[in-house]
Amino acid sequence: MQARINFERLRHDIETLATVGRQEDLGLYRMAFSDGDWAAREWLKDRINAAGLELYVDGAVNIHARLGWDGKRPGVMTGSHLDTVPGGGHLDGALGVLAGLECLRSIKEQNLRTRLPLEAVAFTDEEGRFGGMLGSLAMCGRLTPESLHSARDLDGITLAAAMQERGLDVAQVLRANRTPDSIEAFVELHIEQGPVLDRRGIGLGVVEAITGLFKWNVILIGRADHAGTTPMDMRRDALQGLAEFSGEIPRILEENGGARSRATIGRVTCFPGASNVVPERVECAFECRDTDETTLAELARAFRRTLSSIARRRDLMFEFEIVSEIAPVKCDSSVVQTIDELAREAKVDTLRMPSGAAHDTQNMAGLTRAGMIFVPSKEGRSHSPAEWTAWEDIEIGANLLLNTLCRLAS
Amino acid sequence: MQARINFERLRHDIETLATVGRQEDLGLYRMAFSDGDWAAREWLKDRINAAGLELYVDGAVNIHARLGWDGKRPGVMTGSHLDTVPGGGHLDGALGVLAGLECLRSIKEQNLRTRLPLEAVAFTDEEGRFGGMLGSLAMCGRLTPESLHSARDLDGITLAAAMQERGLDVAQVLRANRTPDSIEAFVELHIEQGPVLDRRGIGLGVVEAITGLFKWNVILIGRADHAGTTPMDMRRDALQGLAEFSGEIPRILEENGGARSRATIGRVTCFPGASNVVPERVECAFECRDTDETTLAELARAFRRTLSSIARRRDLMFEFEIVSEIAPVKCDSSVVQTIDELAREAKVDTLRMPSGAAHDTQNMAGLTRAGMIFVPSKEGRSHSPAEWTAWEDIEIGANLLLNTLCRLAS
Repeated sequence: MQARINFERLRHDIETLATVGRQEDLGLYRMAFSDGDWAAREWLKDRINAAGLELYVDGAVNIHARLGWDGKRPGVMTGSHLDTVPGGGHLDGALGVLAGLECLRSIKEQNLRTRLPLEAVAFTDEEGRFGGMLGSLAMCGRLTPESLHSARDLDGITLAAAMQERGLDVAQVLRANRTPDSIEAFVELHIEQGPVLDRRGIGLGVVEAITGLFKWNVILIGRADHAGTTPMDMRRDALQGLAEFSGEIPRILEENGGARSRATIGRVTCFPGASNVVPERVECAFECRDTDETTLAELARAFRRTLSSIARRRDLMFEFEIVSEIAPVKCDSSVVQTIDELAREAKVDTLRMPSGAAHDTQNMAGLTRAGMIFVPSKEGRSHSPAEWTAWEDIEIGANLLLNTLCRLAS
Repeated sequence: MQARINFERLRHDIETLATVGRQEDLGLYRMAFSDGDWAAREWLKDRINAAGLELYVDGAVNIHARLGWDGKRPGVMTGSHLDTVPGGGHLDGALGVLAGLECLRSIKEQNLRTRLPLEAVAFTDEEGRFGGMLGSLAMCGRLTPESLHSARDLDGITLAAAMQERGLDVAQVLRANRTPDSIEAFVELHIEQGPVLDRRGIGLGVVEAITGLFKWNVILIGRADHAGTTPMDMRRDALQGLAEFSGEIPRILEENGGARSRATIGRVTCFPGASNVVPERVECAFECRDTDETTLAELARAFRRTLSSIARRRDLMFEFEIVSEIAPVKCDSSVVQTIDELAREAKVDTLRMPSGAAHDTQNMAGLTRAGMIFVPSKEGRSHSPAEWTAWEDIEIGANLLLNTLCRLAS
C-alpha cells in the first residue's frame, strides 16, 4: 500500500498560486524578481512556515522547505520554479514546487519514516529573464562572477540591479553552490509541455533524458533580380534554396536521427523582401534537438552537408552562425527505474520518454542522481493561459513523487 | 541606306541628365515632383526649345516635343519617363526620352520627310511615387477624379499637394486624355532591365508583349508548438507547407506555363517567429507573370490547387488575398514587324521577347498601335546605380528608333 498526499490541499495551493501575478485573460506574469514573482515567494514562505517545515533561502534566492535537515546527511531533493514566462500558465514550474511542498507536509503529518532528510526547492529564474535556470546553475556551481555581472534582461536591466532592488546582493548567488555529497538524489515533477502523453492517453511520463540542441542562424546569399524580367533559369534565388533545405529536414532526420530527433525552422527573413524582387539573402533560425550526443553531432554534419550541397548546386553562398549548443543530459537509470517500479505498483501506465524542453533537472543531473516525472499537458499547450492538466493526472503524479522521494530517502 | 542620329549629341545629353538629381554613389533621386524630377524637366524643356521643336506640356505635366504638329493629322509618338526610383540608374526612362528628342532633332535637322507629325514625350510618374504610370494613364483616359484625389505617396503626401506645391492643379490631369485618332502609333525605346539580351549576346530586343501578373498575399495557418517537445509527426508547421509550395513552383510553371512564365516568392514572414516555436502562421508575397492571359489564368488555378492540396494534406488553413492583377498586353504586330524589318535591313540581330517589367507602352497599347525596342542591360542590373548599357548598343537602338518613327510616319 503506497502513501498518499492530501490532494485537496495541493489543489487548493495550485488554485491559490494561480491567482498570484495574473493579468486577467493574459495569463501569469511572474518573471523572476518581478512583483508577481515576489508575491509568489512570500506566499510560499508563509506556506512552508505554516506547515512547520524548516525554511531556508540560499544566496541565489532559491527557497527551500526542509524536513529532518541536519547539515550532515545528504538530502533527497525535489523542486521546480515559481517564475513564469510573460503570459504563462498555472502549472509550468508551480506544479513541481507545490507538489514537493505537499510531499514534505504529508511525510511530516503522516509521520512516514525516511532515513535521509528531504528538501523541496523553488529555483530562481528558470524561465530566463536573466538567461535561464539561474538558481539550479548556482546550486551546481556553474556560474562565474563575470556571467552574473553581465546578466541583463531584454530591457537592459542588470541582474545585479534587479536583486539590489529587492535588497539582495548578486555576489551572494555563488554561495548557493552545493557539494555533491550534500544531495542524495533529485526528482522533478513537471507538466510535459508537449502533446505525446495526451495524444497517447498515457497518464505519466518517466523522463529518460533531456534533449540537447544546437541553434544556428543559417544564411543563404544569392542575387537580387527583377521578378518580372529575370527568367527562372537565370536566377540565384536564396529563398528557393532555403525552401529546398526545409524540404530535406524529414529525410535528414530519418537517415541520421531517430524518433526523438526534432528540427525546426522557426523564423525566416528575406532581403530585400519586396514582392517583385528575387530574394538575394535569406536568414533563418534553425534548431535541432536529440537526446543522444553522437546522434546530435551526426545530424549537425548532415544538415551542414545538405546546406552546402544546395548552395553549391544553386550557386548561392552559405554561412551559418552557431547561436547555442547544449549537450543532452541522461537521467539516472536507478532513479528512472525506481519511478517506473513505483508506478507499476500503483498500477499506473507510464511512457519512458525524453524531455524536449529544458528544465532545472538537467543541471542537477551534473551534481547528483536525477530524474523527472511528467504529467500530460492537454493538447501539448504550455507557456500560455491554455496550459492544462487534468486534476486526476496531477493527483497521480504527485502521489508518485511522494513515493519516489520516500523510496530514495529510505 | 538608313537615317542616323547624331550619336555624340545623344551621348552628351544622357551624360548631362545623369548628373541631375544624383546623390553621389547612391544613384539618382528623381521621384515624380521632387526637386530632381523638376530640374530634369526644366533642363529637358530648354533642350526642346534649343532644338527649335514645339514644346507642349499637357494637364498631366507630360512634356511633349513636337515636330510638324498641326492638331489635325495624327502624330507618331515615342516616349518614356524622366523620373526614377530612389537610387535609380541613368538609363531607365531617360534613354527613351532623350533618344526620342534626338530622333526629332535629327529628322528636323536632316530634313527627313514624313507624312505625319511626330511627338516625343516624357511621361509623368512612371515609377510610381503616386501609384505608377500616371502620365500615360491620364493620356489614355484611365484615371478618375476619385483615383487622383486619393493618390498619395509612402509619406502620406497627396498627389494634389505635390502638384499644388509646383503651382499645378490635380484636376487638370484628366485633360491630358488623348483621342485614339490623334495618335498613329507609339514606340518606346527602353533598357531591358533583365539579363536575357546580355547573356545571349544579342544587341536588340523587339518586344512582342508586356507580361501581365497577379500578386497574392498567401497565408498558411497551422499551430504553434514547442519545437523541443512536439514530435515531427504531431506538428502542423505552416512554414513547412510554404516550403513545399515553393518547391512546387518549377513543376507548376513547366506543366501549366511556358518559357515566359515567372513566379516568385519575394517575402516570407513567420509568426510567432521564435526559434523554438513551430511556425503557426506564414504570410508570403507571391507573384506570377506571363504574356498570355489564358496561361496566366491557368497558372493561377494551378497554384491555387497546389496550395489547397498542400494545406489539406498538412492540416493547415489556407487563405489568399489578391493584391493586384494586371492583364498582359500584346504589342501591335505591324509595329513589331516594322521594327524587325528595319533591324534586318541594318543587319542587327534581334530577339523577339516579352517585357517582364511594366512600361508606359502597356497603357498606350490600349489607345494606339504600340511597340517597344529593348537594348541590353549589363548583367540585367536596373533600379540601381549599376545600371549600364554599352554606348554601341544605345547607338544601334536609337538609330532603329529613328528609322521606325520615320517608317511609321511615312
